[in-house]
Amino acid sequence: MLAVVKSSPERGIEVRTDWPEPQAGPGQVLLEVAAASLCGTDRELYEWTPSAQAFGLNLPVVLGHEGSGTILEVGDGVEGLQAGDRVALESHLICGHCWACRTGNAHTCENTRILGMHIDGVFAERVAVPAEICVKLPDSVSLEVGALLESAGVAMHSVQRSGLAVAGQSVLVNGCGPVGLAIAQLSMTLGAAHVVAVEPNPYRRKQAEALGATVLEPTDPVVDACRDLAGGRGGFDVAFEVSGVRGVLPTLFESLRREATLVTVGHPSEPAPIDIAAYINKKQVTLRGIFGRRIWDTWEQLMLLVESGKVDLSWLVSHRLPLSDADQAIDLLTGEANKVLLVPSLTS
Amino acid sequence: MLAVVKSSPERGIEVRTDWPEPQAGPGQVLLEVAAASLCGTDRELYEWTPSAQAFGLNLPVVLGHEGSGTILEVGDGVEGLQAGDRVALESHLICGHCWACRTGNAHTCENTRILGMHIDGVFAERVAVPAEICVKLPDSVSLEVGALLESAGVAMHSVQRSGLAVAGQSVLVNGCGPVGLAIAQLSMTLGAAHVVAVEPNPYRRKQAEALGATVLEPTDPVVDACRDLAGGRGGFDVAFEVSGVRGVLPTLFESLRREATLVTVGHPSEPAPIDIAAYINKKQVTLRGIFGRRIWDTWEQLMLLVESGKVDLSWLVSHRLPLSDADQAIDLLTGEANKVLLVPSLTS
Amino acid sequence: MLAVVKSSPERGIEVRTDWPEPQAGPGQVLLEVAAASLCGTDRELYEWTPSAQAFGLNLPVVLGHEGSGTILEVGDGVEGLQAGDRVALESHLICGHCWACRTGNAHTCENTRILGMHIDGVFAERVAVPAEICVKLPDSVSLEVGALLESAGVAMHSVQRSGLAVAGQSVLVNGCGPVGLAIAQLSMTLGAAHVVAVEPNPYRRKQAEALGATVLEPTDPVVDACRDLAGGRGGFDVAFEVSGVRGVLPTLFESLRREATLVTVGHPSEPAPIDIAAYINKKQVTLRGIFGRRIWDTWEQLMLLVESGKVDLSWLVSHRLPLSDADQAIDLLTGEANKVLLVPSLTS
Amino acid sequence: MLAVVKSSPERGIEVRTDWPEPQAGPGQVLLEVAAASLCGTDRELYEWTPSAQAFGLNLPVVLGHEGSGTILEVGDGVEGLQAGDRVALESHLICGHCWACRTGNAHTCENTRILGMHIDGVFAERVAVPAEICVKLPDSVSLEVGALLESAGVAMHSVQRSGLAVAGQSVLVNGCGPVGLAIAQLSMTLGAAHVVAVEPNPYRRKQAEALGATVLEPTDPVVDACRDLAGGRGGFDVAFEVSGVRGVLPTLFESLRREATLVTVGHPSEPAPIDIAAYINKKQVTLRGIFGRRIWDTWEQLMLLVESGKVDLSWLVSHRLPLSDADQAIDLLTGEANKVLLVPSLTS
Repeated sequence: MLAVVKSSPERGIEVRTDWPEPQAGPGQVLLEVAAASLCGTDRELYEWTPSAQAFGLNLPVVLGHEGSGTILEVGDGVEGLQAGDRVALESHLICGHCWACRTGNAHTCENTRILGMHIDGVFAERVAVPAEICVKLPDSVSLEVGALLESAGVAMHSVQRSGLAVAGQSVLVNGCGPVGLAIAQLSMTLGAAHVVAVEPNPYRRKQAEALGATVLEPTDPVVDACRDLAGGRGGFDVAFEVSGVRGVLPTLFESLRREATLVTVGHPSEPAPIDIAAYINKKQVTLRGIFGRRIWDTWEQLMLLVESGKVDLSWLVSHRLPLSDADQAIDLLTGEANKVLLVPSLTS
Repeated sequence: MLAVVKSSPERGIEVRTDWPEPQAGPGQVLLEVAAASLCGTDRELYEWTPSAQAFGLNLPVVLGHEGSGTILEVGDGVEGLQAGDRVALESHLICGHCWACRTGNAHTCENTRILGMHIDGVFAERVAVPAEICVKLPDSVSLEVGALLESAGVAMHSVQRSGLAVAGQSVLVNGCGPVGLAIAQLSMTLGAAHVVAVEPNPYRRKQAEALGATVLEPTDPVVDACRDLAGGRGGFDVAFEVSGVRGVLPTLFESLRREATLVTVGHPSEPAPIDIAAYINKKQVTLRGIFGRRIWDTWEQLMLLVESGKVDLSWLVSHRLPLSDADQAIDLLTGEANKVLLVPSLTS
Repeated sequence: MLAVVKSSPERGIEVRTDWPEPQAGPGQVLLEVAAASLCGTDRELYEWTPSAQAFGLNLPVVLGHEGSGTILEVGDGVEGLQAGDRVALESHLICGHCWACRTGNAHTCENTRILGMHIDGVFAERVAVPAEICVKLPDSVSLEVGALLESAGVAMHSVQRSGLAVAGQSVLVNGCGPVGLAIAQLSMTLGAAHVVAVEPNPYRRKQAEALGATVLEPTDPVVDACRDLAGGRGGFDVAFEVSGVRGVLPTLFESLRREATLVTVGHPSEPAPIDIAAYINKKQVTLRGIFGRRIWDTWEQLMLLVESGKVDLSWLVSHRLPLSDADQAIDLLTGEANKVLLVPSLTS
Repeated sequence: MLAVVKSSPERGIEVRTDWPEPQAGPGQVLLEVAAASLCGTDRELYEWTPSAQAFGLNLPVVLGHEGSGTILEVGDGVEGLQAGDRVALESHLICGHCWACRTGNAHTCENTRILGMHIDGVFAERVAVPAEICVKLPDSVSLEVGALLESAGVAMHSVQRSGLAVAGQSVLVNGCGPVGLAIAQLSMTLGAAHVVAVEPNPYRRKQAEALGATVLEPTDPVVDACRDLAGGRGGFDVAFEVSGVRGVLPTLFESLRREATLVTVGHPSEPAPIDIAAYINKKQVTLRGIFGRRIWDTWEQLMLLVESGKVDLSWLVSHRLPLSDADQAIDLLTGEANKVLLVPSLTS
């Protein structure tokens, strides 16, 4: 079987044609992968950065943690799923037994294992996964959109984490990669009065403009722009930091009004200095971050929006490549691309 | 001065041409009324129903509690307002000193007096009001829309009271008078996945359809329709009861999913029997109602949406009449009308 | 084996000495029952009331849904539990797959089955139960207290459902059966400024007085008492209706301040008329009810309080009887008793 | 009149015997000061530190922003207060007109002026203050306790800001000055399962021990202690940082469980580096701070607890001195003292 594999703890990946066929063990399903989506983490795994190494991969492993497919076979003891079902995949495999899992906080389960890191992932023709991570797709949702739901779920979770503070409010989004764009899109769908997006990459700025956001470069006077739009409120109601870039937080804090919310989505690689006295105490900004998706509140909320047609995610796809072009797909991530898909049914 | 007056505790109103000119006392402003909007309460005051009598009017009094105008003169001690300012009016005059006023719950102030009931209202050429109830209109908001804000504020408060549960969720609105329509419109603006509106009046159903809602008659299978759209959730996420009609609550409870919210906006004239065991306990529906508008959170939120252009309220106006046609304006309320305005500058 | 069995759809129970020994099937554990607690529902099952019939029992069945015990044996596939573990039991067996279960609302799972109704319960020497409903007891918590946790969990859930509105606030509890008493106790533990308890039964009033509550009879001027204590607030902050008695809600609504919360815990047997306009709209009271316990937030919260010694539940036990005296135990429920336990190790 | 005055922008204070008698202007009341309490800010004002200079004092000014007294005279237009009323004082004078003031966020009003900084304060025999900052004391609350309410209100606000997360939960308090001690005391009153307090000063540790907290030194293994007590939760539920000391946040983050809350109360003098990826994102800790007291929710909540006898604050007073010993009072702040009062009726 064709599969994109991380074989050893060093830079690079291998496209393997002889990877063994997966089997649906007890509690598992065997999927024919329809589409697999790449994210920045895949590039880190390729480059074998320190943060990639920190994931503790179970090598060798088939990469790919964002994907969708059609069930070919169900293993013993699987209920509620059957061959032919079209599903999207949650990438986090939770333990189900710890305090976090028992109290509705499974997204913080300390025993989380990740698809495409600790078990074989979706950069392959077929994959066997635990039945629990399968989310059935309604008829109106395509398999390609299904492959985007894990990533768009990060955006949905960010919006949920703000307390839905985007609805009817003014929203600042820092960073317009696919997750930032999805946050901007969801904010507009949920009635944001103003959406200001900040992004240095011209290709991505164009995407954000197409959404209808007010788009700025980091060198523009972001604080003034937000304060002008905010009028008597003195600043924006909520900000999302999606870039992970060092040094951006003060601008976001300054752009916010008092009693606002700042949600960090990007993972900065080092501690960020925060002026507690000025922003957390005196300005009373609430600082929250997100990790993964709420299981399953985020999926339920996003699916309702997608199935009802209020949110169309398909425009996020900019490239579709065969598995054999995985190297090229990873190269695309830093350039003029939005969401890049590996589609096993394509041939190079 | 021309004014529409309730003179005595009996059916009817008087159009008076000799009403004394109001003066801006200390802490007050004198307004030239631009537009005044009617609501169901005005009809009750006209008919002198028991609930109208319960308001304890300070007779004789100029009616009218929804309005906008331009400041002609400010009284002693007024800060932040000046002649020429365009303002909308909050209709509730709160005491500012009670527990409710001190803790952010001024909408429940027990000492509330009401414009057009306890002090002269806006069905007149000019009116003197406390400066505190004036809300300045941004340049982009017309005086006519200003006259709709008190009433649309009831809709905004309803949505706030649901915990913004309309955003990205499925919404049932029972009753499509102007407030119900505004709730439906706000729900769509804030990204509701589905909006189902129920209304017996064909004229109003047409308005709701124009908004894009799924519109049903009360005799239609409302529960089934909601459950079908809701899929695995088992029902809708939030319902608004805006009709005040007897006997409608069971249908709303049945249409909701477990852990949903039901917001009552209409004021039923008698106690409603509620199956606590089935709906409040077992189904875990939260029942909340609204009264007036949050002062000033509701105004701030609604104004942001209106000023930014996300919400256009102007379509709600179906009729504009001169003050002298006040009787006819009241007649219109029960027929083919949406929002009816009295416009002092018009002549019959 | 000795077991208390509901054999047929009619009044009464049978103490059987020949009930077959249960076995720990896959995913199950076999328990030696340490103590089983009775609640009002057991009396309804005995009397075979309409509401008892509505549960859809799987007859014949061993009764008893509140209990604790020591694991004798674990079935195939059980993880995290072993022989010798001391556990309390959740009585609701949830499906784990529906929308409610997937979104942290498992307490409202529509596929819920109940211990002692749909599978054999704890009024027996031994019982086999799904491993999922076992909650391990910390060393500092006795098995007898373990048998009280299901019922005290209803009280904990009620307090959680109020938004922890008891903490530092004024609390009205209507009905001082074991659940009402536990609500009063938890309220005092969590710092309630005032706790007023209303109860017609003198024995129960004495219990509430021992807790330190201000105790009234239903014929006392409850509304005045609350308003006097509340001072400028105008009423109490939260009320719990635990009696299920017809006609009590207006007194509770009147005793509350504006923007208060009313939590219904008792299940009235018929719809209750509620003055929506006065209480839900104008007074802005939020009406919520509870059902069972949040799974597992309620258990986690209650266990922390019990294990840390902040809450001592042992005083709630007023009687301990052998299984053979089950009839007498049921008789006790309506008289001078608080919590009545069946203890299999006792002999009559 | 005797008054403690900051005359010029340099180190030190002056005890003046010739300060002019204040008058109750319109909207003001004249108070006979009963007691005035010192806080760390007073020491900063004495030392004329950079942060003291940043307050923008209106020199010369009578110091003192925590106090109570009896009304001698009311100015024109004052309602609801009269000579003989005993009152405590809010120290923040809000504008009442800005977005923050209009939406229940007056504690963040950008136009705030402060008693004892921008208008003459309570380190004097008499003081004239705006009627709005007076909070009437119930009969059961002494004037001395009244002088503690501004400071204890900071503690109450901290607890409110955590979402009442202390109630029935595990609480870490870093820093046992008067505010930290009050947070620990309130946490215990509201039913905290565990309270761990960390403090280097032996005198203060003794105070915290007397409250019943588990008391540690900063050099003790704080993280391990919290994790041990927390068991399966993995850490504490909420932490309060009350010291303002540099470098303490990582210990607090590590001591918390996932989805916990960290409330900053102390004002660190420089930005604090925070590991966003580890704590805000992955651990999902919510970071919030406080500023002043909610106006008036905090006062209402605290007064209910104090008036009902659930919270006794009087033990917080360790020293009472005459106004003439103001220098000595300030010296005491850094040594073996808890709350130090200046009492005008005392003579040295």
